[in-house]
Amino acid sequence: MDRLAQQFAFLNEADRLKSVLRATTLCDGSRQENSGEHSWHLALYAMVLADQAAPGVDIARVVRMLILHDLVEIDTGDVPIHSANGTAHASEAQMAAEAAAADRIFGLLPPDQAQDFRALWEEFEAAETPDAIFAKSLDRVQPVMQNIACGGGTWATYNVTAEQLQSRVGHKVARGAPALWDWVRTRAASFFETI
Amino acid sequence: MDRLAQQFAFLNEADRLKSVLRATTLCDGSRQENSGEHSWHLALYAMVLADQAAPGVDIARVVRMLILHDLVEIDTGDVPIHSANGTAHASEAQMAAEAAAADRIFGLLPPDQAQDFRALWEEFEAAETPDAIFAKSLDRVQPVMQNIACGGGTWATYNVTAEQLQSRVGHKVARGAPALWDWVRTRAASFFETI
Repeated sequence: MDRLAQQFAFLNEADRLKSVLRATTLCDGSRQENSGEHSWHLALYAMVLADQAAPGVDIARVVRMLILHDLVEIDTGDVPIHSANGTAHASEAQMAAEAAAADRIFGLLPPDQAQDFRALWEEFEAAETPDAIFAKSLDRVQPVMQNIACGGGTWATYNVTAEQLQSRVGHKVARGAPALWDWVRTRAASFFETI
Repeated sequence: MDRLAQQFAFLNEADRLKSVLRATTLCDGSRQENSGEHSWHLALYAMVLADQAAPGVDIARVVRMLILHDLVEIDTGDVPIHSANGTAHASEAQMAAEAAAADRIFGLLPPDQAQDFRALWEEFEAAETPDAIFAKSLDRVQPVMQNIACGGGTWATYNVTAEQLQSRVGHKVARGAPALWDWVRTRAASFFETI
């Protein structure tokens, strides 16, 4: 198979991420967000909030990471962090399923790109490098902003408390973008007081 | 208003791009694509098809450009290229409406970012720099691939001929990515022969 055929096999398969639904809704609450448009929104977050990143973070790499970070969900679906099955840390079974999905989906690409994309996804998942830590912060903070915008959203659905928000979400946002979390936490906290 | 308040006013407004519908459907034909997920898919196209770009094209800039290229559609909507109102070149009225939308939407950002984003959007629209020419090629080729994947899609809807596809779409794809268009044209042409 030629290189372009492999690349388009991957790009056409990636299209399915637009049909993976997340718990979070759009800001107007009209429907659930899908993981494709969520990934776009996060890339825009990275461009706009670049000045919240630690010194040395490479925003172009963060954008690339965020563009592909959810592709494994084509096979595994999204596990909402506040759902009964959700946790702040993925289970062994979930991690194994996502690794198999990464094998299959990135494996559609020509070998050099498969390796590059897989490495970038693994770096995101490990959340140990400055780029990945910042990318994770954005991935965690965007649903918070969507919930604030639409009057509570999944917090009400899943009976989330302010303490759970801090332990499941806040720590990870603060790890990569402390000033950002200070600002968002204030808005979220005043919201919890009113419900 | 503080800087983060301005940045989130913009990011929350950008969320509305997920509700702007395009003529093109998903690869499985299940529904129309929206401009947010389309922008994500194009960023992935740029990452995957980087080796189709002319020497000197900065893929990171192309990705940034593609992430924000459709934001004006929040105010103006998408004008399908093969529709009765669509043309390969935007009308004066459409360009004026998009400029006003850019003023409003990018104007939500802090002034330094408003200027940067606006300049990148204008560069994309002008399609004169190597980065913008390549970005435009991807924006034009992705709907072709979606149509091929789902059995004709908007070509059948709008009675598009192979000649119209070449004049409205092919020239622009070929301008930034000639080898890519050679490959895609063959697949599209064989499809037109069967309908």
